[in-house]
Amino acid sequence: MKKSIKKRSATVGLPPGEVVFVGQQKTDKVRITLFDYDEKKYQEKELKTVEECYPFKDKPSVTWINIDGLEDTQIIEQIDSHFEIHPLVLEDIVNTEQRPKLDDYEDYLFIVVKMLYSDDQSQDIRSEHVSLIVGQNYVISFQESSGGDIFNPIRDRIRNDKGRIRKMGADYLAYALIDTIVDNYFLALESLAEEIDLIETELMADADIATFRKIHALKRDMLFLHKAIWPLREVISGLLRTESQLIRKPTNIFLRDAYDHSIQVIDTVETFRDMLSGMLDVYMSVISNRMNEVMKFLTIISTIFIPLTFIAGIYGMNFKYMPELETHWGYFIILGIMLLCALAMYSFFKARKWI
Amino acid sequence: MKKSIKKRSATVGLPPGEVVFVGQQKTDKVRITLFDYDEKKYQEKELKTVEECYPFKDKPSVTWINIDGLEDTQIIEQIDSHFEIHPLVLEDIVNTEQRPKLDDYEDYLFIVVKMLYSDDQSQDIRSEHVSLIVGQNYVISFQESSGGDIFNPIRDRIRNDKGRIRKMGADYLAYALIDTIVDNYFLALESLAEEIDLIETELMADADIATFRKIHALKRDMLFLHKAIWPLREVISGLLRTESQLIRKPTNIFLRDAYDHSIQVIDTVETFRDMLSGMLDVYMSVISNRMNEVMKFLTIISTIFIPLTFIAGIYGMNFKYMPELETHWGYFIILGIMLLCALAMYSFFKARKWI
Amino acid sequence: MKKSIKKRSATVGLPPGEVVFVGQQKTDKVRITLFDYDEKKYQEKELKTVEECYPFKDKPSVTWINIDGLEDTQIIEQIDSHFEIHPLVLEDIVNTEQRPKLDDYEDYLFIVVKMLYSDDQSQDIRSEHVSLIVGQNYVISFQESSGGDIFNPIRDRIRNDKGRIRKMGADYLAYALIDTIVDNYFLALESLAEEIDLIETELMADADIATFRKIHALKRDMLFLHKAIWPLREVISGLLRTESQLIRKPTNIFLRDAYDHSIQVIDTVETFRDMLSGMLDVYMSVISNRMNEVMKFLTIISTIFIPLTFIAGIYGMNFKYMPELETHWGYFIILGIMLLCALAMYSFFKARKWI
Amino acid sequence: MKKSIKKRSATVGLPPGEVVFVGQQKTDKVRITLFDYDEKKYQEKELKTVEECYPFKDKPSVTWINIDGLEDTQIIEQIDSHFEIHPLVLEDIVNTEQRPKLDDYEDYLFIVVKMLYSDDQSQDIRSEHVSLIVGQNYVISFQESSGGDIFNPIRDRIRNDKGRIRKMGADYLAYALIDTIVDNYFLALESLAEEIDLIETELMADADIATFRKIHALKRDMLFLHKAIWPLREVISGLLRTESQLIRKPTNIFLRDAYDHSIQVIDTVETFRDMLSGMLDVYMSVISNRMNEVMKFLTIISTIFIPLTFIAGIYGMNFKYMPELETHWGYFIILGIMLLCALAMYSFFKARKWI
Amino acid sequence: MKKSIKKRSATVGLPPGEVVFVGQQKTDKVRITLFDYDEKKYQEKELKTVEECYPFKDKPSVTWINIDGLEDTQIIEQIDSHFEIHPLVLEDIVNTEQRPKLDDYEDYLFIVVKMLYSDDQSQDIRSEHVSLIVGQNYVISFQESSGGDIFNPIRDRIRNDKGRIRKMGADYLAYALIDTIVDNYFLALESLAEEIDLIETELMADADIATFRKIHALKRDMLFLHKAIWPLREVISGLLRTESQLIRKPTNIFLRDAYDHSIQVIDTVETFRDMLSGMLDVYMSVISNRMNEVMKFLTIISTIFIPLTFIAGIYGMNFKYMPELETHWGYFIILGIMLLCALAMYSFFKARKWI
Repeated sequence: MKKSIKKRSATVGLPPGEVVFVGQQKTDKVRITLFDYDEKKYQEKELKTVEECYPFKDKPSVTWINIDGLEDTQIIEQIDSHFEIHPLVLEDIVNTEQRPKLDDYEDYLFIVVKMLYSDDQSQDIRSEHVSLIVGQNYVISFQESSGGDIFNPIRDRIRNDKGRIRKMGADYLAYALIDTIVDNYFLALESLAEEIDLIETELMADADIATFRKIHALKRDMLFLHKAIWPLREVISGLLRTESQLIRKPTNIFLRDAYDHSIQVIDTVETFRDMLSGMLDVYMSVISNRMNEVMKFLTIISTIFIPLTFIAGIYGMNFKYMPELETHWGYFIILGIMLLCALAMYSFFKARKWI
Repeated sequence: MKKSIKKRSATVGLPPGEVVFVGQQKTDKVRITLFDYDEKKYQEKELKTVEECYPFKDKPSVTWINIDGLEDTQIIEQIDSHFEIHPLVLEDIVNTEQRPKLDDYEDYLFIVVKMLYSDDQSQDIRSEHVSLIVGQNYVISFQESSGGDIFNPIRDRIRNDKGRIRKMGADYLAYALIDTIVDNYFLALESLAEEIDLIETELMADADIATFRKIHALKRDMLFLHKAIWPLREVISGLLRTESQLIRKPTNIFLRDAYDHSIQVIDTVETFRDMLSGMLDVYMSVISNRMNEVMKFLTIISTIFIPLTFIAGIYGMNFKYMPELETHWGYFIILGIMLLCALAMYSFFKARKWI
Repeated sequence: MKKSIKKRSATVGLPPGEVVFVGQQKTDKVRITLFDYDEKKYQEKELKTVEECYPFKDKPSVTWINIDGLEDTQIIEQIDSHFEIHPLVLEDIVNTEQRPKLDDYEDYLFIVVKMLYSDDQSQDIRSEHVSLIVGQNYVISFQESSGGDIFNPIRDRIRNDKGRIRKMGADYLAYALIDTIVDNYFLALESLAEEIDLIETELMADADIATFRKIHALKRDMLFLHKAIWPLREVISGLLRTESQLIRKPTNIFLRDAYDHSIQVIDTVETFRDMLSGMLDVYMSVISNRMNEVMKFLTIISTIFIPLTFIAGIYGMNFKYMPELETHWGYFIILGIMLLCALAMYSFFKARKWI
Repeated sequence: MKKSIKKRSATVGLPPGEVVFVGQQKTDKVRITLFDYDEKKYQEKELKTVEECYPFKDKPSVTWINIDGLEDTQIIEQIDSHFEIHPLVLEDIVNTEQRPKLDDYEDYLFIVVKMLYSDDQSQDIRSEHVSLIVGQNYVISFQESSGGDIFNPIRDRIRNDKGRIRKMGADYLAYALIDTIVDNYFLALESLAEEIDLIETELMADADIATFRKIHALKRDMLFLHKAIWPLREVISGLLRTESQLIRKPTNIFLRDAYDHSIQVIDTVETFRDMLSGMLDVYMSVISNRMNEVMKFLTIISTIFIPLTFIAGIYGMNFKYMPELETHWGYFIILGIMLLCALAMYSFFKARKWI
Repeated sequence: MKKSIKKRSATVGLPPGEVVFVGQQKTDKVRITLFDYDEKKYQEKELKTVEECYPFKDKPSVTWINIDGLEDTQIIEQIDSHFEIHPLVLEDIVNTEQRPKLDDYEDYLFIVVKMLYSDDQSQDIRSEHVSLIVGQNYVISFQESSGGDIFNPIRDRIRNDKGRIRKMGADYLAYALIDTIVDNYFLALESLAEEIDLIETELMADADIATFRKIHALKRDMLFLHKAIWPLREVISGLLRTESQLIRKPTNIFLRDAYDHSIQVIDTVETFRDMLSGMLDVYMSVISNRMNEVMKFLTIISTIFIPLTFIAGIYGMNFKYMPELETHWGYFIILGIMLLCALAMYSFFKARKWI
């Protein structure tokens, strides 16, 4: 959190539209790939220089320019000035702390979303800042890194003309990218669900303060997921309700589907939050139940032995004249009385259901 | 939960409209039944092949095709391609994790709801994914299994021309199906109400950590019920407010009634949630009250005997010169003092209302 | 709760509009009374058969038919078929679990409300299902029983031409009935306020688990009151905003007043809920405060006497060579040391403000 | 609370518009004062009889009739019948339990607000029921008593032609009255803020159950303040948005200002509520922290002395053959061992940071 | 809090628009600076008298008058009367307790915001009242003091013609000022984030009541931040949606950006609040966990030694006839039994996982 605030504050006082990269460097080199396709043909290339993509701007075919890595702000500025993008957009592309949003600039839509993907090695969930510029016949996508290559299935669908992607326009491509991102949320949620399951098992067996810390950490994760997903829903709902000519009617049905998925993600996150709250209750109850058992045991031992010790104390006194001490069976009678006392206590506890 | 997420993630990366069955197989064989009726006559048959239902599409009479079992995605694709259904609809029919929703495709309405029915053998409440396609003069319903046959009363009403079902159109049939599903929620709620009553009795008698776990489990059930029922209400309210020509005005009055019922279900679930929260409070209070009693008992025993034991300890000391020890009545005087001490303590506790 | 769910489930699977009485029988015999009045004259009679009210339907004067008792569904069906009432209305009239609502059927309005009145004998608060059908020049009211006769003041106002009731139409009569019902909520709230006051006094004096149970029971009562009153507010607000010709403008001012009262009832219930929550806090605090006092007392007694008993224990040891034991003043010196110890402890507690 | 409900229930069953005074009598005599002014002249008099104000009704100058005391309902009825006020208005003027509201009767606006003022003698905050009838060129104000004379500054402004009051109409006078009432809320809040400050100091020093009761009492005060202020905001916002001709445009800017103030009052009350909730948390934490210290002290004393007492007990046994007892240095060695035990325990506690 | 209420109450009873400075005096002298610029030239001067700024009013170039210090209400009145500002605006400029708001006076917009900046010396966060009057070609800004000179970067941008500020109108200048204020919120949040981080570390190591007080203090800070920021968002959103001609379309895109930032601030504050609530939970859990450990230790020590002490007590009794005492190995056998007892207890605790 602190870090993200610090990054944000690096730009305080600068005029709006100043392009300052505030993220961590995640790639060695900025990588620009280009897809250009229509129903009949497609073309794929990796660009060395930015200038190579200029001729595609006015082609009627759909052009998808994907930029991996945001460090080289100059490349981004070059692309954007060629595509006549507003400087404020540049600022938000490189500001990895920008929350998801949809801005309508008439000639193009600017979309910011957060991509969640699970790192294959560390099993951790990583978040990545993704921006889309959706024009009449082009989509420019900016990623912090190659993002676990979650866009590869879409690339395959373009290459193999699978589904309807080649038959439709840039708006459908934008939808496909967003839908893939939303779909990947389910993978992240799956790994969280597994963690929740593990903690549930722990709660049944031997909950301790470590269990509590795990629940608390997950609750905080949910806080940040919540913060990423709610504005995403607004973005998709904004695309659904937009009056912009850039989103054509056939794409709308698909956006409705993506919207549906985003709601399912939100639903799941909310359910997880409620479940974690419930688990905190269970944890508290388990801990207090265990403590109560310990305390009850102390009570029983104490209350049984304290009076007995007192009786023993009495006959340990050194008074000259203590008639009981002189009797032959005195010792055994007192032992018997002690036993009766202990049994009485025990029955009392049983009757009160304290044991 | 985890399972449902996992299922959902199986389709990540596929193009939209890909038909993948993600549920558990619940039926041996897909079963297709067909009803065709108007005010004067009715026809009922069980179909061997999908093609048998094709001729009914353009008949003016109302046709109800019911498919039990979603495993055989090919059959579903066949039906849907004949009835010109959008591929996204297919995806949602077989995706048993899809939340309830209403989509208007102009030529037909697509409705997803969750059926709750109580299993006759295990007394458990089962949830089942039900999809309806409502066209001008046909309704196609998809169920995971025969679903406890909760639609049988409707079949009887068609057969016996009971009520107004034969006099009205496909929209009324759709209403009748949804209303039956909503009505069955009350049966599920009844069994939950019984469980709540049992726990209430437990709370009065001998609450322990098991009671807590039961309350907690019910609270979680409510979470999932809540998740199923709220979107259902939106579905019915969507049908009420739709501008689609498929829902005629006379059916609207009945939909208003079903909407009313769905609100009553929500009301009951919310009341149950509030009651369970209240019961958690009672549980906590009962447990802490019992613990307090145990602790108070310990206090009383300890504080009465600790000073007495100390007095006995004093006269157990082996000092050469302890004048009291030599007196004849010393022992009895000390016993008397101890008794007075105990009585003083006891009165003190009584005065403070600790006993 | 369970009971109300069970009743509801009795009608599952029946076609809509099936008239099944689900309440408890509260009257021996259904009683039908009729008032017919205009500015100049009025007529009052108790009907033996339903048919007697038929001629009043088309009279220009205002007709109020009141039916006490819902068991005899046939009578209700007769009246309704004569007045051309929709079958769904019949279903809701006899379904005593129906929540308050307002349905506009163009020729008439159908209103369901809950009447609360306090039973004169048992001091309990009773709830009763009341339905009103408001036509152009008639009002038909259905009650479970004679309902503590809370409508009697209105009858008197008609008989004695008091206020403006004789000068106005059926809509004003409907308003008067609803307003009387809302006014009776204040009587119910008054008895609850008394209970709350009693518990407050208990909280100051000697709160125990019984106090907690009383607070909890009242909280649950509030839950059900809340459920009855919120939809009532919507009913009145619906009447205010309705475009139906049946509610004339002069009546609107009075409905606004009734709406105001319903909001005051809701306000009071909400305030009661907040007060009860606050009282739970007080209860918890009082109980924990008392427990803390008990625990502190134990601590003081224990920590004072445990070291003393240890000292006594030392000089109770039977070592051959213990020089202190031989000295003449040893015993008294040790007693002095013990006293000093006790005083030191006591001052320590005082300093820490534990006493 | 109970009292206010009881008062309300006194009018149950009466026809609407029945004028029944339900408040406490606060004045000896109803006092009627009249101001009549325009830009050039002003006139002020105290009326003996109601009739004296009749001639002012149709004068073009602004007339302000102020009635202190609501007991004499006849006077109020007289005034209202002369000014052609709806009977429901009369009912609300004398019903001191009526919540703040704004009713538009076309020829006049009817406004109910609650005045809060601090009693100079008792330092208590008093609430008073104030009603305003705002016509084209007159304002009639009804107060329970002279209300701490909070309207005196306005009277002075009229007398001395200070500010713009003499230049503007009846709507501005109504605004001035409401604004004065809102301004007086700040005085009430100030005294509450002082109480909160006192409790904060207590929380730092020596919180006990009395502190808790004070916090709880303030929380309840906030509940009632909240109930008085929220509808007040709606009243002012209603005046801002009204389409009534009675509120002229120049006054609107001032009403916006009053609205702003009402929001600031609400903000402050909400902040107080949050602060009080936070203070409850602090109280709980302080109490539990102190309890924990007490318990830790008990633990340390007990765990140090219990084993030592046991050792002493062993050598207090009377066995014939106990070799240690015979050794010359046995006693001192055992004393040494005891000291070591105590030190070990002490270090253990230190290491665990329990001391 | 109390102070702010007291200040507010100083103006009770005054006619609206009365100019009373209620803040603390923060500057020695009111300082008036003036910028006048268009695309080609700019002019900067510090004014000695108010009259110097009069000629700039009707110049077509953009004029920015900045007043530091609000004590000298006469200067403010002079400026405002020359610029024909409504008296209510004056009242709000000097009322430092006024909450953020936007008022549209047709000829100019009046904006109140709160500036947060961190004091360089004390590291504290300071709040300052800032008002803007935005006319066709002028902006007048009022600050309590020079406010950490957070406007200096804007002055530099004007001087050096950096960004687009010189090319755009007064509305863009107003945006730039507001945006700078919002940006400075991030700096304040950064310092809060650091405090939160410190407390988190404390929670892991050694939480005590001081940690709790820090969390509680931060929670209260959040309360006041929340109160300052929410209305700020409304102000910017009001500027976005205003129909006023004063805000031109190109500026709108920038305002949307500022709105975005304000939402990010709110998001962060809300996240901080949730985090602090979570930290309170952790604190409670850590404290109770530590307490439980202490209690368990007491239990173990007590329950092991209490029975042993009892056994020792038995053989300390002075009965004449106690056969065990006479046996040669009796002492060692009893010691052995005691050891067995202790081991049994220890295993019991281990088995129950209490150790």
